[in-house]
Amino acid sequence: MAKLLIIGGVAGGMSTAAKAKRENPELEVVVYERTEHISYGACGMPYVLEGVIPSLSKLIARTPERMAREGVTAHVQHEVIAVDQAGRQITVKNLITGELLTDSYDTLVFATGARAVRPPLPGITLPGVHTLKSLADAAAIEARLGSAQRAVIVGGGYIGLEMAEALRQRGLNVTVVELLPQLLANFDPDIAVLAQEELAAHGVGVRLGDRVLGFSGNGTVEVVHTESGDLPAELVLLSVGVAPNSELAQAIGVALSPQGAILTDSQMRTNLPGVYAAGDVAAARHLVSGQTVWLPLGDTANKMGRVAGTVIAGKEARFLGVLGTAIVKVFDKALARTGLSSQEAVAAGFDFRSARVSATDHAHYYPDKRPLEVKLLWDGPSQRLLGGQIVGHGDAVKRIDVLAALLFKQATIQDLADLDLAYAPPFSGVWDALLLAANVALAEA
Amino acid sequence: MAKLLIIGGVAGGMSTAAKAKRENPELEVVVYERTEHISYGACGMPYVLEGVIPSLSKLIARTPERMAREGVTAHVQHEVIAVDQAGRQITVKNLITGELLTDSYDTLVFATGARAVRPPLPGITLPGVHTLKSLADAAAIEARLGSAQRAVIVGGGYIGLEMAEALRQRGLNVTVVELLPQLLANFDPDIAVLAQEELAAHGVGVRLGDRVLGFSGNGTVEVVHTESGDLPAELVLLSVGVAPNSELAQAIGVALSPQGAILTDSQMRTNLPGVYAAGDVAAARHLVSGQTVWLPLGDTANKMGRVAGTVIAGKEARFLGVLGTAIVKVFDKALARTGLSSQEAVAAGFDFRSARVSATDHAHYYPDKRPLEVKLLWDGPSQRLLGGQIVGHGDAVKRIDVLAALLFKQATIQDLADLDLAYAPPFSGVWDALLLAANVALAEA
Repeated sequence: MAKLLIIGGVAGGMSTAAKAKRENPELEVVVYERTEHISYGACGMPYVLEGVIPSLSKLIARTPERMAREGVTAHVQHEVIAVDQAGRQITVKNLITGELLTDSYDTLVFATGARAVRPPLPGITLPGVHTLKSLADAAAIEARLGSAQRAVIVGGGYIGLEMAEALRQRGLNVTVVELLPQLLANFDPDIAVLAQEELAAHGVGVRLGDRVLGFSGNGTVEVVHTESGDLPAELVLLSVGVAPNSELAQAIGVALSPQGAILTDSQMRTNLPGVYAAGDVAAARHLVSGQTVWLPLGDTANKMGRVAGTVIAGKEARFLGVLGTAIVKVFDKALARTGLSSQEAVAAGFDFRSARVSATDHAHYYPDKRPLEVKLLWDGPSQRLLGGQIVGHGDAVKRIDVLAALLFKQATIQDLADLDLAYAPPFSGVWDALLLAANVALAEA
Repeated sequence: MAKLLIIGGVAGGMSTAAKAKRENPELEVVVYERTEHISYGACGMPYVLEGVIPSLSKLIARTPERMAREGVTAHVQHEVIAVDQAGRQITVKNLITGELLTDSYDTLVFATGARAVRPPLPGITLPGVHTLKSLADAAAIEARLGSAQRAVIVGGGYIGLEMAEALRQRGLNVTVVELLPQLLANFDPDIAVLAQEELAAHGVGVRLGDRVLGFSGNGTVEVVHTESGDLPAELVLLSVGVAPNSELAQAIGVALSPQGAILTDSQMRTNLPGVYAAGDVAAARHLVSGQTVWLPLGDTANKMGRVAGTVIAGKEARFLGVLGTAIVKVFDKALARTGLSSQEAVAAGFDFRSARVSATDHAHYYPDKRPLEVKLLWDGPSQRLLGGQIVGHGDAVKRIDVLAALLFKQATIQDLADLDLAYAPPFSGVWDALLLAANVALAEA
């Protein structure tokens, strides 16, 4: 019986395990996970901390006991510390007992994920300076919520903004400090500013273009030192980026992307025989630029795992790539993006154009209508759609998926204008905001 | 100066007029509209009657005065009664004075719309038996709302269900009588039943497979006679279908579709030189079946008008066709569809398959999540997507547009599974409902 061994048991790893076992019940499937939990909805952690979801345990999708019933052996608090690819063996450390053990494999999957970057700043190890990647991280922040009154969030990306909302809603005084001159670096500045306005409207301070120099405090963090001045804080969240946990793979010769993520083919195979990667640790092909990118997101991790599991089980599947499609809630607003931003379009060498419209999500005469901003980017010469960004309220912003579908099919702005979209006054204007944007784009093209 | 004459001044006609004048200010543009109003949001009428929108006047987008400022002459209460295509002349009746006048044209557009069908049943002319097509129709229903306590809606299509909600919310006792064994004939029966359940949950009676035989009453409608028995009603809405107002066009030799709608090419040209059609009166190509269909919907009418106006102004545009994409609100639920239903797929000769999933619109652990049903139809041999139906709540159901985009690009169910859709817990599960449906479809394919 062939044996599949998976390092890492969250989104990518556990999707691989479950799918492989389901597609090929003959397979022996063993998972080693370093933390205490497998298969949890990490993207839900800000909402537990906000108090919207009652407890972290609600995020746990599968337990080792449940996986055992499905025929998958999952060991938690077990860290794989070495891989002997020639001998098809790994060395594992039981993090509770400290005991070392070995295990063997026929097929190996790196689903080691990513870690939050902790820059080597003075005071970075002070209690109260947190990152948010695991359930344990979330529990540690939760434990501090009772006493902290002021929070500083370092980094204005997706997690930074979700946590700014969460902590503000819990009554803390919150300031976001961002090194760049805008929040949400993979949105265009004119769109990202709408997130900034929403934060300001809810009393969250934002310092752009400011650099954090370090942290200080008497036994616990009390002050964040930045170039523009000190900020008192009993709670600091570092959300300045993530890095792939690819060291173990690199040590055995697995090829990495320039970003340090594991390179795979569309079957999630690495350059080594019988060795796969899936989830946040893996690079991917960008479906618009064709470039190798590293865009670790939870839904992508699950899709990669599903493909890896299917292929390992001996069936056909492929993961074609990503568009960086994402959506983020910031208080009452939602911002979504797909494909290339203006900066990314320049970097990828496109002679791009853009158009932006201010529309509404429902008919102008329907009482619950709310503003909906749509920005389109397209390639000037070919009129091929390159990307889109939408800002509005609630589910209306999921319209971004229409653009993601068109990008996947390499559609043009004319294609967007030609779409037959669903119309009724409680759901859109007679010209859906996307069609208005396409019409403006065509007029400018 | 060339003269454009447009018969009909609502969605298709006024879009044609406005666009033609904007693209070619040299053009003389004259519109004749039979009713009192041009350019109103007819789809909003049920919501005025429901009391959600304060008055019918809110639906009026453009007045003749405003059009005059844009350089378009729009005559209301003027009915074109004859066309002399050889002499490029029309005869118009002023419906206020009864006066007849003539006018000339270089280019003629039939934007004559559709009318509500009034079957020749006994008592059909009794006061209290209404249709809902024009603002005057809506005003007549509104005038009766004060006294009517019981309403019967004949026909369970989009307007029938929207009006069932509207009248029920206004406190009336409402029964929908439908000849077919299901509501919403262009949805699959297993999906349409969800609308029926929603009506029942809000106290609306539904009689399926029942035939209305006639109406009776002492000076005003009091009873609706059906095959299964009498229903008392002081208000009746007939919503049993529409018919194209194509008689005038037919009289001068304009070619019609089997449904009686005007046939056009993709530039909205009819078979006669200098004669165009746009809006509800025009047929269209179905983008999945390739067949000529007649699916009069407000957003389609606007798009056709925009194309007609652009072409008449001497610029390039084309209307490629329709998917019958539609969305309807039924109390707290929304139902949407695009492409072919099962019945339509059979009729179009496809060897189709279908899959249905019960998912949620937001992450399973996010507190505001609600059920979302997705049904996909695809061609068995080619796995090409043929259609989709979604039932859920609010804007989440606008996901149908993703399927509409894929249908337009002739995508497969594998394409759908490959999409990089936007994920965050307040907006979808980590597997969006559409991706879940695609995965189930692939497993069954």
